[in-house]
Amino acid sequence: MATKLSRRKLFKEAGKLVAGAALGAGFVGVGSGALVRGQAEKAPEWPWPYAELDPQAVAAKAYEIFPQGHCMYAVFGGLLLELREKVGFPYTMIPLEMAEYGKGGLVGWGTLCGAINGASAVINLVTENYAAVISELTGWYTQTALPIYQPSNPEVEISTTSVSGSPICHVSVTKWCNASGFGAKSPERKERCRRLAADVAAKAAELLNQVAAGTFTPTWAAPASVEECLACHGPGKAVDNVFGKMDCLQCHERHM
Amino acid sequence: MATKLSRRKLFKEAGKLVAGAALGAGFVGVGSGALVRGQAEKAPEWPWPYAELDPQAVAAKAYEIFPQGHCMYAVFGGLLLELREKVGFPYTMIPLEMAEYGKGGLVGWGTLCGAINGASAVINLVTENYAAVISELTGWYTQTALPIYQPSNPEVEISTTSVSGSPICHVSVTKWCNASGFGAKSPERKERCRRLAADVAAKAAELLNQVAAGTFTPTWAAPASVEECLACHGPGKAVDNVFGKMDCLQCHERHM
Repeated sequence: MATKLSRRKLFKEAGKLVAGAALGAGFVGVGSGALVRGQAEKAPEWPWPYAELDPQAVAAKAYEIFPQGHCMYAVFGGLLLELREKVGFPYTMIPLEMAEYGKGGLVGWGTLCGAINGASAVINLVTENYAAVISELTGWYTQTALPIYQPSNPEVEISTTSVSGSPICHVSVTKWCNASGFGAKSPERKERCRRLAADVAAKAAELLNQVAAGTFTPTWAAPASVEECLACHGPGKAVDNVFGKMDCLQCHERHM
Repeated sequence: MATKLSRRKLFKEAGKLVAGAALGAGFVGVGSGALVRGQAEKAPEWPWPYAELDPQAVAAKAYEIFPQGHCMYAVFGGLLLELREKVGFPYTMIPLEMAEYGKGGLVGWGTLCGAINGASAVINLVTENYAAVISELTGWYTQTALPIYQPSNPEVEISTTSVSGSPICHVSVTKWCNASGFGAKSPERKERCRRLAADVAAKAAELLNQVAAGTFTPTWAAPASVEECLACHGPGKAVDNVFGKMDCLQCHERHM
């Protein structure tokens, strides 16, 4: 056996070793350090590979991490941490913290529910059919008595559920406060949003599993008011100034 | 000069080269393929490094790419593409397509303006002070006559601006439709949102530049109605059932 090789050949062999390591990390690497660098710099093709998730495991993870970054972080992180377990790279490249901003419907503004925002980002990451899945998730959210999730050893006990009728944080939170009697920043309301985040994460996993299995069938239909109001206010109609899918009559009065 | 070296020494040198490449790509790499692999699998520490951006270049990029994925994609992508230019890795690891979902205020639902959603995700990615920056951006959005951006050769001519008073897509779009007379799905309204996306991207870059320079000073204050209404409806008050920063009187009537 040769114990000495040409400089060129040894560099080539060293390159292969590194490329092998890079391939193990999910890179489409080839035998050169420069190319390993090039591959590492590039985002994997969208959509990213999905693996079937256990919705209850996702829910438990979302519930567990909620205190670290609130609602959007919990759902985004709950799904991504499970995908890191099942798929690994490239899910390891996205910092969970980038989804903290959705809390309280955008840093406390009360707009879009952060749980929906976080789920939607992950849904969009893994399927080209994201629009139908997100509408299904959001429709379910607006029509379902939440929260459903029951943690094993909750720090705060709550039993009230409410139907939001809306994906808007302010509406969703206030409906639950009115139903439960607890304050908007009470520990009970935070526990409600923590459990709701677990529910939304589980529902997202359930829908994504269906997409992966080829069994996803949208069931959500917009509230009757949307069709009714857009008959005048919709695209191409007499008072063409609205598009949307939220229940019009939750904020507007019926008029003709 | 030696043209032949020991196997051990040459592998060591090759490792350094690869480590150098990895360092150039933003890895904290050392001289071994295995460690390069380990680093490549892990998300870089949050927040990610920021480099001063040219707000006008960001605006132009957002405007350019809008047709590929709409409002959230345009702002998210406009900022990330410029950060890829200035910083490179790790911004190259995030697929821009994951931000398509915010379009039309969440796949057409009309909730949070996708331009704000996209900007907020990037702001959250690069600074721990994201909440103040996002509130400043969102406050500016609600109070400013938009759009401002003037493309050099627009396919669609528009001249109407409007003040949304709200970060909600439905409100923002309908206000502009009412002001301009153009329909909710008209080419003119799409051009309005395309230019608005450029504005939001530029404003986000401007604010992030201030954060990086240590000159960021929040100026936005919530509408008077927020303080007024939360005097009863806020945390710990008589009718404690609301938190939020949106103008209450845009949707609710004053009452005592």
